[in-house]
Amino acid sequence: MLSRNQIKFIQSLRQAKFRKEHGLFIAEGQKVVEELMGSAIDVRAVYAVREWVGEHGDMAGRTGTDLHEVSPAELGRISGLVTPNKVLALCRIPEREDGLSADTPVVLALDGIRDPGNMGTIIRTADWFGLGEIICSEDCVEVWNPKVVQSTMGSIARVKVSYTGLANYLSLAGKPVYATVPEGESIWVSKPREGIFVIGNESQGVRQEVLRYATHRISIPGTGKAESLNASVAAGIIMAALFIS
Amino acid sequence: MLSRNQIKFIQSLRQAKFRKEHGLFIAEGQKVVEELMGSAIDVRAVYAVREWVGEHGDMAGRTGTDLHEVSPAELGRISGLVTPNKVLALCRIPEREDGLSADTPVVLALDGIRDPGNMGTIIRTADWFGLGEIICSEDCVEVWNPKVVQSTMGSIARVKVSYTGLANYLSLAGKPVYATVPEGESIWVSKPREGIFVIGNESQGVRQEVLRYATHRISIPGTGKAESLNASVAAGIIMAALFIS
Repeated sequence: MLSRNQIKFIQSLRQAKFRKEHGLFIAEGQKVVEELMGSAIDVRAVYAVREWVGEHGDMAGRTGTDLHEVSPAELGRISGLVTPNKVLALCRIPEREDGLSADTPVVLALDGIRDPGNMGTIIRTADWFGLGEIICSEDCVEVWNPKVVQSTMGSIARVKVSYTGLANYLSLAGKPVYATVPEGESIWVSKPREGIFVIGNESQGVRQEVLRYATHRISIPGTGKAESLNASVAAGIIMAALFIS
Repeated sequence: MLSRNQIKFIQSLRQAKFRKEHGLFIAEGQKVVEELMGSAIDVRAVYAVREWVGEHGDMAGRTGTDLHEVSPAELGRISGLVTPNKVLALCRIPEREDGLSADTPVVLALDGIRDPGNMGTIIRTADWFGLGEIICSEDCVEVWNPKVVQSTMGSIARVKVSYTGLANYLSLAGKPVYATVPEGESIWVSKPREGIFVIGNESQGVRQEVLRYATHRISIPGTGKAESLNASVAAGIIMAALFIS
């Protein structure tokens, strides 16, 4: 049985300021919670219905996670989903070393990605292609937002996401910078393999102040009539193109 | 000023059975509504705040659309969005010729896509690459669902989406059928150019009964640790690979 205070506390973590204050984030859904429990992320507490506890409770025991069995109605009260799943977890936001490493041959940079679903999907795709780090402009959606965490399907445990002044970062990077724009060179022609690849905001694209530091402008050629691609689809195609083998 | 009955009527169109009964669907958001008004879709009525009416009201006049100026509070009552946009439209569901044409070299087929955002994004991507038709299994999310319409960003006006028994359709197609699976031949190796390309359900992938008719099994190779790609990202990468120029 959850107390009113517990419910209020969990609900408060839907807001960035309380996540920051308590150093905790919410993960929802079986797939995501189970992936995180098997990862380096510190899963502090799990709130789950009886069925999940029966099947996975021992997993919580092994990892020292606080396990609470809740009724479906209680889960509904703490869940942010329209159709609450069987389990919700509170996890510690990892304290990652400060500063950007990004010394891998390929770096993905996001300029003003606002939609949590897009952000989470981009992280999941980066994890698919083995990219361990993403650099974000400071106005990108916060990575510990519950909808971002949900859309990563657990990949959040393996991809480091850093926020920084993107224009400044690019100006100092000393690497080729490929900006994705509506009218650039076809990725199938330029065939880039190494550098920093910038994906722009959902409606505005890559900002002028960031474009200034682009050494190359690339595009995904299309012969149809849509005005643009969804940002996470564009990011996916760019990443796929980099790893053509 | 909207009457209670008008509000109730518009809200009812969030349900498939009322959309079918009245032959109408809801489109929300400036970009989508404006794209549809410039398309072959019959936009019957527009509900917009004063600002939108001032800027775009003449467009409604030209197309014979019923234009209603509403207050932001009224728009909030008929909107399905968390942050209502400036405009909502009621559009006639086009009566498209029965039967599947799909006689283009490349056909996209969807097997059990359930998420409205994925469906809309796939339609938008198909439009980007100039694919005019998508074949869906009967349990795919309905294309006139407001969230699907929203995610297409207007591409719904240009891409024909048909629902059919997918296994039966494939059995009669007489074309190469490429199913996207976790362990298939790399798309960069098989380099397919023509045929029917099947994308599977978000968690189950392509069903066995559909896989039976696959002449080829293809995959998007990744070296990372994510278990799978998001369905709309996978569809985007497959489509991009088909049109490498």
